[in-house]
Amino acid sequence: TAEVLELSRPDDRLGRMVDLGLAALIFFSVVDVILESIPRLERAYWDLFVAVEAVVVAIFTLEYALRLWSAPELERHAGCPPWRARLRHALTPLLLIDLVAILPFYLGYLLGLDLRFLRVVRLLRLLKLTRYSAAGRVLLDVIYAERRVFFAAFSLLFTALILASGGIYYLEREAQPEAFGSIPAAMYWAIVTLTTVGYGDVTPVTPGGKFFAAVVGAIGVALVALPSAILASGFVESLHRRRARYRSLVDAAAADGV
Amino acid sequence: TAEVLELSRPDDRLGRMVDLGLAALIFFSVVDVILESIPRLERAYWDLFVAVEAVVVAIFTLEYALRLWSAPELERHAGCPPWRARLRHALTPLLLIDLVAILPFYLGYLLGLDLRFLRVVRLLRLLKLTRYSAAGRVLLDVIYAERRVFFAAFSLLFTALILASGGIYYLEREAQPEAFGSIPAAMYWAIVTLTTVGYGDVTPVTPGGKFFAAVVGAIGVALVALPSAILASGFVESLHRRRARYRSLVDAAAADGV
Amino acid sequence: TAEVLELSRPDDRLGRMVDLGLAALIFFSVVDVILESIPRLERAYWDLFVAVEAVVVAIFTLEYALRLWSAPELERHAGCPPWRARLRHALTPLLLIDLVAILPFYLGYLLGLDLRFLRVVRLLRLLKLTRYSAAGRVLLDVIYAERRVFFAAFSLLFTALILASGGIYYLEREAQPEAFGSIPAAMYWAIVTLTTVGYGDVTPVTPGGKFFAAVVGAIGVALVALPSAILASGFVESLHRRRARYRSLVDAAAADGV
Amino acid sequence: TAEVLELSRPDDRLGRMVDLGLAALIFFSVVDVILESIPRLERAYWDLFVAVEAVVVAIFTLEYALRLWSAPELERHAGCPPWRARLRHALTPLLLIDLVAILPFYLGYLLGLDLRFLRVVRLLRLLKLTRYSAAGRVLLDVIYAERRVFFAAFSLLFTALILASGGIYYLEREAQPEAFGSIPAAMYWAIVTLTTVGYGDVTPVTPGGKFFAAVVGAIGVALVALPSAILASGFVESLHRRRARYRSLVDAAAADGV
Repeated sequence: TAEVLELSRPDDRLGRMVDLGLAALIFFSVVDVILESIPRLERAYWDLFVAVEAVVVAIFTLEYALRLWSAPELERHAGCPPWRARLRHALTPLLLIDLVAILPFYLGYLLGLDLRFLRVVRLLRLLKLTRYSAAGRVLLDVIYAERRVFFAAFSLLFTALILASGGIYYLEREAQPEAFGSIPAAMYWAIVTLTTVGYGDVTPVTPGGKFFAAVVGAIGVALVALPSAILASGFVESLHRRRARYRSLVDAAAADGV
Repeated sequence: TAEVLELSRPDDRLGRMVDLGLAALIFFSVVDVILESIPRLERAYWDLFVAVEAVVVAIFTLEYALRLWSAPELERHAGCPPWRARLRHALTPLLLIDLVAILPFYLGYLLGLDLRFLRVVRLLRLLKLTRYSAAGRVLLDVIYAERRVFFAAFSLLFTALILASGGIYYLEREAQPEAFGSIPAAMYWAIVTLTTVGYGDVTPVTPGGKFFAAVVGAIGVALVALPSAILASGFVESLHRRRARYRSLVDAAAADGV
Repeated sequence: TAEVLELSRPDDRLGRMVDLGLAALIFFSVVDVILESIPRLERAYWDLFVAVEAVVVAIFTLEYALRLWSAPELERHAGCPPWRARLRHALTPLLLIDLVAILPFYLGYLLGLDLRFLRVVRLLRLLKLTRYSAAGRVLLDVIYAERRVFFAAFSLLFTALILASGGIYYLEREAQPEAFGSIPAAMYWAIVTLTTVGYGDVTPVTPGGKFFAAVVGAIGVALVALPSAILASGFVESLHRRRARYRSLVDAAAADGV
Repeated sequence: TAEVLELSRPDDRLGRMVDLGLAALIFFSVVDVILESIPRLERAYWDLFVAVEAVVVAIFTLEYALRLWSAPELERHAGCPPWRARLRHALTPLLLIDLVAILPFYLGYLLGLDLRFLRVVRLLRLLKLTRYSAAGRVLLDVIYAERRVFFAAFSLLFTALILASGGIYYLEREAQPEAFGSIPAAMYWAIVTLTTVGYGDVTPVTPGGKFFAAVVGAIGVALVALPSAILASGFVESLHRRRARYRSLVDAAAADGV
């Protein structure tokens, strides 16, 4: 299991190169999916895209198999019988992402799924990069640490969303039944306004609706800042703390092979 | 008054279950209103919606009656004659919200009010959740604690709003009398621009108006950050402080039955 | 000069009532201008609006005259000959605002200026409220204290604005000569995008222009936060500091009669 | 090399005046480019614009030559043979910007490049102002100091961008093949939504697409705050630190002639 060890040993050259190679392959594969979605390129290079996808999936399948195979050698699973260590390892989030990255290929052939749907699922491979980047894990940490504050902020936003949708539904329903004909339909407008995106494809036309929209916009601008301010302050703080113990973390992360 | 005590006792299982049940009923009832607003569902399941609403209002009415009835048992109202304790209790914000949650049902039948208006008022039931969540109360606390700062920030925004409306009214009035024909009409544009929502349904067309719009947008982006920054910093700070004394608060809140 | 002293004495009842009355009059006068701008109301109540305006200007003129007259009694101007104290006082920002509030009325009659222009100038009366509110002065203080940071932030925004205008001008000029035919014209788009207002009345149509717009939007979102973050943090900090010495300030402000 | 020394000596009057003169010339030249881009002015004053440009480039060329020439006199390059000091100096970022400011003029004549492209490149002269302002350098410092945090924030935004583009491509492809026909095309919509610019020229029309757009808008508003919050806090902090040692910095900057 020499090749497997590369995946779990820290600091050795071979392990680093394999990591870099896999990260590059993820990028390459995502770019490949994006280019494939351009109709002109899809027609011209269809064979090439199929071949590239086959090779990429083959490498990712090999990576997945080796990771599973080497699971009993991890300290974390010491003392377990090999099959149980492998099962446990397979259920960790990172390994599940690895599975999502290759499964669509096989299922697509078996079940004859829609090609475009598979394409979007293949984009989820990007999540495999979480293994090599702190960003995703920090984000989840911050959300977990501040979960009460987030819950409070989101429940305010949710209340604002429901009441804004209900109000505009009442005010604009007669004038624009196609856009504000039900509260769920009005929610699209409410979110677009509360987040200050403001496409303008759906806007109030009655004086009452315009006044209400102005109020909702003003409330939105104040409330929407809540989750982002919480996220931003927690994110910066957490990453600064991590920076201090960064080296050791890298080693540790590499050491347990996940 | 055994059932009533469930509402005011802390930590006992029954009280918690009743709380959870009521919170779930509020959610369920709001979802019901939202679904009822979809014309297709309204036609198909009209009888069901009426029945559900009747049951929900019945339960909320019972809850309201029990809360009122048990008022004299609360420490807060100790020493009052029962009728006065009940009157006082009925005038607390939470009990008023409870009244708003059930009154439309009865008034709707009596006064024959517009169905769609009642529907929106029924959405206000969502505010009953304030009893179980810290978010709303923290928001009000922060607004109260920082009321001077808020007042200052809003008076700046208000001044910017008035001057922006007046300016665009002067510049665009000739070119677009239907959208900028009066200062109140121009205010819709001014708020949409100052909050950076920017629908685009009303935009300046004259060179002077465009230049003015650019200036207003730039000022808006700076001023609008004031209330949200104040709110966000106060909100995070306040919830962190609360977190420490959270347990005790939960008990206390449950203990006084409100 | 008994009536004048009301304006400069602190804490006495009469002075406070005069202040409140004047603040209310400012509000009333601004609402009057706004209502007058609605064509329907303008036609119906033209005589009333003219009469109200005459009364308001008369009171403000009296106020201005009394403030000027009482200038030599102010400690600040002690030792000056009366006429010089009055001249100096007339050149303070607050007195200049007072002049702007009444001058349009007289000039309008003399020079036969455009009615709508005068209307907007009359809205500037709102600035008279600065005398009674800390907001405006705090804002100016913050801008002054952080002037270097602001200058840095704005020079970044200015550079981004120029380069964004130049880039989109080059990319979209051929496709949309009416909207991007010159760099100044393209600046309208650039500001609307950098501030994330995004009306959508002017948008790129070429692939290059769309790509450039995406980059400008992303840069805008990061840069635009600079001045508002500086303003918000300085504003909150400054108002908290002021809160401590608020009482004394009120006295002092009232005491020097300005 | 008396004139050259003006450029490298600190605090002397002549040096300061030359600096001010050059900064003013940069501004003047940029305004000139902007005005030239207006077709009406271009036709009317073509000769004038050509003459002004020639004079400006002549002065900037002289400045560039003198800076290069005086390079061996700088302490930094002490001990180098003159030609090497000059080469090294020519490769510093500030001197490269100086080169970019004049090169287009000469290349334009030689290679017959597109006039409009040259015009935009001439706008890059604005970057010459970095020599006289702290803003640009502080921005780069902050980005460098917080590069890990930025990388984390941008990799989150990048992941959100890819997944948002893929999702909307899948949902809206059938309904609007011209706007969402490929993932790169959908990226334009995704960035416009994530940054909350929200032009509205491309919006979802299917119920699924609208729901997805609402989710993306909400995520965008939270994620987009990350880089700007990092930038803003770092920027304010860094400029406050700089303010203390400002004087010395000015001297030092002037002293090393760059």
